[in-house]
Amino acid sequence: MSACALILAGGKGTRMKSELPKPMFEVLGEPMLEWVLSACENSEISDICVVKGYNAAAIDEFLSTRGKKCDTVLQKERLGTGHAVMTAREWLSERLDDDVLILCGDAPFIDEKTITESKALHKKNGCAVTVITAKVEAPTGYGRIVMSKGKILGIVEEKDLTDAQKGITEINSGAMWFSIKALLYALDEIKPNNSQNEYYLTDSIHILSSAGYKTGTYISDNERVVLGANDRKGLLKLNDIARREIIGRHLDEGVEFTCTDGVQIGRKVKIAPGVKILQGTILSGETSIGKNTVIGVNCLIDNCTVGENCNLNSVQSYNSQIGDNVTMGPFVRIRPGSVIKSGVKIGNFVEVKNSTVGEKTAIAHLTYVGDSDVGKNVNFGCGVVTVNYDGVNKNRTVIGDEAFIGCNTNLVAPVKVGKRGYTAAGSTVTKDVPDGALAIERTELYIKEGFSDRKLKK
Amino acid sequence: MSACALILAGGKGTRMKSELPKPMFEVLGEPMLEWVLSACENSEISDICVVKGYNAAAIDEFLSTRGKKCDTVLQKERLGTGHAVMTAREWLSERLDDDVLILCGDAPFIDEKTITESKALHKKNGCAVTVITAKVEAPTGYGRIVMSKGKILGIVEEKDLTDAQKGITEINSGAMWFSIKALLYALDEIKPNNSQNEYYLTDSIHILSSAGYKTGTYISDNERVVLGANDRKGLLKLNDIARREIIGRHLDEGVEFTCTDGVQIGRKVKIAPGVKILQGTILSGETSIGKNTVIGVNCLIDNCTVGENCNLNSVQSYNSQIGDNVTMGPFVRIRPGSVIKSGVKIGNFVEVKNSTVGEKTAIAHLTYVGDSDVGKNVNFGCGVVTVNYDGVNKNRTVIGDEAFIGCNTNLVAPVKVGKRGYTAAGSTVTKDVPDGALAIERTELYIKEGFSDRKLKK
Amino acid sequence: MSACALILAGGKGTRMKSELPKPMFEVLGEPMLEWVLSACENSEISDICVVKGYNAAAIDEFLSTRGKKCDTVLQKERLGTGHAVMTAREWLSERLDDDVLILCGDAPFIDEKTITESKALHKKNGCAVTVITAKVEAPTGYGRIVMSKGKILGIVEEKDLTDAQKGITEINSGAMWFSIKALLYALDEIKPNNSQNEYYLTDSIHILSSAGYKTGTYISDNERVVLGANDRKGLLKLNDIARREIIGRHLDEGVEFTCTDGVQIGRKVKIAPGVKILQGTILSGETSIGKNTVIGVNCLIDNCTVGENCNLNSVQSYNSQIGDNVTMGPFVRIRPGSVIKSGVKIGNFVEVKNSTVGEKTAIAHLTYVGDSDVGKNVNFGCGVVTVNYDGVNKNRTVIGDEAFIGCNTNLVAPVKVGKRGYTAAGSTVTKDVPDGALAIERTELYIKEGFSDRKLKK
Repeated sequence: MSACALILAGGKGTRMKSELPKPMFEVLGEPMLEWVLSACENSEISDICVVKGYNAAAIDEFLSTRGKKCDTVLQKERLGTGHAVMTAREWLSERLDDDVLILCGDAPFIDEKTITESKALHKKNGCAVTVITAKVEAPTGYGRIVMSKGKILGIVEEKDLTDAQKGITEINSGAMWFSIKALLYALDEIKPNNSQNEYYLTDSIHILSSAGYKTGTYISDNERVVLGANDRKGLLKLNDIARREIIGRHLDEGVEFTCTDGVQIGRKVKIAPGVKILQGTILSGETSIGKNTVIGVNCLIDNCTVGENCNLNSVQSYNSQIGDNVTMGPFVRIRPGSVIKSGVKIGNFVEVKNSTVGEKTAIAHLTYVGDSDVGKNVNFGCGVVTVNYDGVNKNRTVIGDEAFIGCNTNLVAPVKVGKRGYTAAGSTVTKDVPDGALAIERTELYIKEGFSDRKLKK
Repeated sequence: MSACALILAGGKGTRMKSELPKPMFEVLGEPMLEWVLSACENSEISDICVVKGYNAAAIDEFLSTRGKKCDTVLQKERLGTGHAVMTAREWLSERLDDDVLILCGDAPFIDEKTITESKALHKKNGCAVTVITAKVEAPTGYGRIVMSKGKILGIVEEKDLTDAQKGITEINSGAMWFSIKALLYALDEIKPNNSQNEYYLTDSIHILSSAGYKTGTYISDNERVVLGANDRKGLLKLNDIARREIIGRHLDEGVEFTCTDGVQIGRKVKIAPGVKILQGTILSGETSIGKNTVIGVNCLIDNCTVGENCNLNSVQSYNSQIGDNVTMGPFVRIRPGSVIKSGVKIGNFVEVKNSTVGEKTAIAHLTYVGDSDVGKNVNFGCGVVTVNYDGVNKNRTVIGDEAFIGCNTNLVAPVKVGKRGYTAAGSTVTKDVPDGALAIERTELYIKEGFSDRKLKK
Repeated sequence: MSACALILAGGKGTRMKSELPKPMFEVLGEPMLEWVLSACENSEISDICVVKGYNAAAIDEFLSTRGKKCDTVLQKERLGTGHAVMTAREWLSERLDDDVLILCGDAPFIDEKTITESKALHKKNGCAVTVITAKVEAPTGYGRIVMSKGKILGIVEEKDLTDAQKGITEINSGAMWFSIKALLYALDEIKPNNSQNEYYLTDSIHILSSAGYKTGTYISDNERVVLGANDRKGLLKLNDIARREIIGRHLDEGVEFTCTDGVQIGRKVKIAPGVKILQGTILSGETSIGKNTVIGVNCLIDNCTVGENCNLNSVQSYNSQIGDNVTMGPFVRIRPGSVIKSGVKIGNFVEVKNSTVGEKTAIAHLTYVGDSDVGKNVNFGCGVVTVNYDGVNKNRTVIGDEAFIGCNTNLVAPVKVGKRGYTAAGSTVTKDVPDGALAIERTELYIKEGFSDRKLKK
């Protein structure tokens, strides 16, 4: 069977008190819709349509940044999940022989195993519909799966349960596989016969079952597939669940945590065994950390490659590469486009931006290295500034291997300090410094004796 | 009826191991006594007397900083809650026709609804005493309310309970309304017939009831009214309860939290919907945050107004105003008296003190702006210092719109840089710079060839 | 009786996914082996032998840094706990008349009271073996103590329990006292008759009991004596338990915490009553904090003495001494070898290294004080640098009492500023400044009118 997915992302999330569509709210820094999309893509379902509705522009904008192609349809009115699927009728009709996985854009924990195995079960059993379910200890509030003789009679909401049905622990995740032909049949039959006057997709199960179609469930062992967020407290809970689950996975892989307070690790982050993560550390985006590196306290590392045996303490680093045996911190900021090579030492109150820093170079304190190409074994004094902006243009600074940049030096770019070049403390360097030369901009030191007595008299 | 309040704040808190009176210990940065006082005031009870005892000077000092008037009486010996009230006999006698709310200064969670509704009930029922109570699942350790035919027989402490009474779940909060005349009658009857030789205020209930006065309870639905702190662990627990409750309230209002570790928000802080608060963030005092602003990680914002669409990362800011669309951080400190206008960008390792920074001005790195008036669209290089102190006086720096301050410039105040004025990197500026002019203090750059070879030979 | 201890530290900890031996994993910053060793030493057992095995070099290296003498034997193959003890047969034989306490190197929570009291009981009862046990509510998974008539029949592992034995709540901690003669007898009898083909030390109990030796248990009221860590999750749990227990102990001593998120306090840290510890604060090593000092947020204090009435906010300080009434922060780093005297004020973005800073000196902002001896009442401007490194040597800076160091001054060491010496802002000071003199290195300020218009034209 050929498979596609339809993701329902039209909802508003009124209780979020925000203009964002609900699936755009973030869990661990990624919209819930991204979680759902990537679960599909990682299960090799790339033919995807997103039903957008409330603030569709926000969904469009998000999808445009993803790189991966994806169709959308617009649900102009929001009349229930069945109506959302009806909006995609044309898209579905173009795939008549396929099966479609319908997913909720605000239930982020659907996983690859669940998708792949439910798809296989759906195919093997030749079902018209296969509902993805979970068996939970506390089913209260969820739609229960009412079965009879291996067939689903229907999905019954809490308030409509008979006493006997209240004991059912198998609940609906909202995700379900349909043969598209059967789905189209069912869509014609769903009626808004309820107090909300909405079209419920769950009605399709009873419709298909009654019409003699084969129906079934796939019981996921990932209970979290049923979880979504309707308000900020629910969203915080999803974040908390995801946070603990990912930390647990890294613990299993041999990563050391001694206190996880404030620690948050994104889904795509890779951490080698023996790494130690201290409290208050956030790792996000496409970050990887090499073995035996210590990260923390209070680091924020986003989209960075960090090598082995490094020690980063109170560092914020973005979109940069950090080699092996690098020590940094405390209180350091590495801005995008930086390459920090192996053995570099960066001390307190240092900012590096869009620069390459060569092997074993030391930038110990209170220094700004921006738009620069710095060689190996360079020593920066304290208070050095690469003057990269003249009010009109940004210019580069080039510093050769083994150079020594004196304290409080201004390197006025574009400028080049040659290999083993020196600059004297307090100099403003406006011309290139040849290899092995010293640049000094300084006048005579004048001593006024008795100054403090005269000052005090005044 | 006219209402006043008597707050018992004479206790020592021996197990706190501190010289502070117990009601002076803080919950979310405010003394417990402040919580009780403001609950009264917010319930329109402004005629208040505080009974002070242990380290009365600390209570006096605190009250003197509050602005709002409040009487005090001194309990010289500490002989129980009844004795504490006796200390205020004169104050009570001046209000013979009123009713008085007696409150514990170390039970901070008394709330406006409880005060207002219990007062109304007390009045409606014409009671001599109305005890504020709560019904709790785990009453062990609290004084139980023993009722008979709608009348309180008495308040019975844990150790004196009969087996039948152990099932009682209605407990005494310590707060109670009295008709002052009835209270004065009861005070005369309370005897220290107990192992501690103390006068217990709770005895007054039995006394009044037996004498035929009408008694009743107001059962608060805020169970926390009964909570107090006797030691540091209890105080931590109160802080934790208050912390979670306030975060929960902001979640309900549409504020986003993805990890609440280390987050602490004061009672008076106002946060607009759509604001995102990251881990380790403390908001205190009279702080307000405008919509869609992101605060964190690790911000500490005290008594500040922060506008909309701002982004503050690792910022500490005190007693200042921050406009809309401001980005700050990481590692920034805004000291009192600063006004940061809309669109300002403040980067890493920047300190602003007692200064105004105009619209869209950029202070990117390693800079100190103190006692300054800075215009719009000004660009600060890295390492700029406003030299505001000459060893004797503090002086102001004035910088005009669109000025460009070169890196490592010293602006020696009092000094003025005009509109579109420039200063060259590394200059110490001791005179005013006219509009559109460049100030440069620099000598010739001298290059010594072969310096590093000679140095190495040595 | 004379007592010695044998600590089993040969295990690998496969599930840690690390090359470290299991007892070398850290709880609150100290290897578990250190916890066990110090518990012995604090119980006045200084004759200790460690059985090392997996990565013995790591154990050796650790022991060599401890200062205290300790024997080791190498267990070349790892064939069970009984085999580990057999490895030490020679060491034991040299102490034939003694008793030995056998301890697991990866069960860190053995405590002095348990060791001392179990030793006394072992002696008083004249037992051949006394097993240290605990009675726990959830014994599942632990070896149960099967007793009969005051005698231990044996220690039975979970899988070998009869139904009747499953109710036993007394479990083996792994720690046990032996008369060495009896132990040597038992070692000869232990056989590897089990599926792992290993020699189990626990078999010795049954062996001795059967042979008529007197056996008994000491039931510790510290249930944590049974806890160890087999994987990273277990290690995190031990850290968490230790973290909470130590914070609880300080709360009992009158230390204030309002939010303990991210707070971690080492075992040896001493904190006076009335100290306030804010979130994100780590205190480690031999640190002590004087009364009424406030530490936090986000401080990291390692091996420092901090005085009374200080306020440290976002400070990292290592191996230094800080006097009374010192305020520091936010964003300060104190590096090893610093002595900060009473009344000093250190502001944002300041680094002090290997320096003495005299009473009431102020270092307000963006300054590096390294390898310096600074007097009393000195005022540092913003951006001051002690230029302590010339590319070859580190040199010292000396600053006299009441000196005033202008902003962005470079003090090129070796250099001395005399008492009440001044340096002008922006000066590079390369010569000593006499008492009361002003040093100024500055050229004429030149103003180019109309500069910005010309620049814009270009």
